[in-house]
Amino acid sequence: MSEKKISSAVIKRLPRYFRYLRDLLDQGVERISSEELSRMMHATASQVRQDLNSFGGFGQQGYGYNVEHLKDEIAKILGLDTPHNMIMIGAGNLGRAIAGYDKFDNRSFHIKGIFDNNPDLVGDVVRGITIMPMSELKRFIDENDISIAGLTVPKDQAKDIAEELYGYGIRAFWNFAHVDLRLPDDAYVENVHLSDSLMQLSYRLQNNL
Amino acid sequence: MSEKKISSAVIKRLPRYFRYLRDLLDQGVERISSEELSRMMHATASQVRQDLNSFGGFGQQGYGYNVEHLKDEIAKILGLDTPHNMIMIGAGNLGRAIAGYDKFDNRSFHIKGIFDNNPDLVGDVVRGITIMPMSELKRFIDENDISIAGLTVPKDQAKDIAEELYGYGIRAFWNFAHVDLRLPDDAYVENVHLSDSLMQLSYRLQNNL
Repeated sequence: MSEKKISSAVIKRLPRYFRYLRDLLDQGVERISSEELSRMMHATASQVRQDLNSFGGFGQQGYGYNVEHLKDEIAKILGLDTPHNMIMIGAGNLGRAIAGYDKFDNRSFHIKGIFDNNPDLVGDVVRGITIMPMSELKRFIDENDISIAGLTVPKDQAKDIAEELYGYGIRAFWNFAHVDLRLPDDAYVENVHLSDSLMQLSYRLQNNL
Repeated sequence: MSEKKISSAVIKRLPRYFRYLRDLLDQGVERISSEELSRMMHATASQVRQDLNSFGGFGQQGYGYNVEHLKDEIAKILGLDTPHNMIMIGAGNLGRAIAGYDKFDNRSFHIKGIFDNNPDLVGDVVRGITIMPMSELKRFIDENDISIAGLTVPKDQAKDIAEELYGYGIRAFWNFAHVDLRLPDDAYVENVHLSDSLMQLSYRLQNNL
């Protein structure tokens, strides 16, 4: 699948293609032209064709794209055809809000466990998942085939916890802590820095951009 | 301030500069060389100098940067020297988690109100803020000088709500709904699409990128 180097701009657009195609499918749309798809994506038709060609091209001249097929192919490219078991570290408001959100399951992301060292939180139940103490972490990861860890912990704890998780074999980190993690090259970190995005918004508002 | 066109890559890095400089200041560091700053940023010293030069350059040959001065200047550029009053629309788990987070205040983002149409939620209090019904929206925006609205609502409601807010004068949207808002050109939308970032993570994990 990844024989060619795919640009990171294309990769960033893939989840959007996936979302649009899933919405179209929900609306009963069976096929779509690259022109229509490009209008939805706010891109040119030639960019859409080029994007999808970088994965082998799923369209047919004069027919366009079969929505379900294209959605399934993009799902495969994104690794959504296999389930991902996740844990959340940090059962504060944000961690519990994310663990409580049931829509990730539709996209094959399954939050299996929530961990926190605060004894006031351990034992609480979020969407059927009991909050566990950090001492259970290693055993739980081993027994539940966990591939992704979400970090909703204070920034001064995030580094140590990420390193501990790396030691237990976790390679994918969904990091909400306001710190840039430094992990070995075979670890993948996706940051969700909420304040950074607010600052971008403030910048654009101030500079009319 | 925005006489030169500043690249969006530089702008994306500014919140990180700001975070690092604030952390340095908290640690009592008064000055820093571009070499040290670049090590923290995982960039080259010449990139750091180039980034900061695009705003006028705040360094002095042989001295480096005064941390507090540079932080303050970046804060100004980001529009953090003036307070931003915000509202959150949608008092579900995510909306309440965000409204309950007190760290945004340090960066001059002040969540003044939370709105939801669910009568079971109206009247609840989050961090001292009472959840209000949507019928109060217009009055509240007018009276509280609100400039930013966070949207943590279901995606099928986000578009209409954003248009309503636009009609009340809101121009900056912090959008958590899984839909791309289409608003007039003078509106600024910063998306936080949590599933998109999980899909990126899944892609990188699957393709070892």
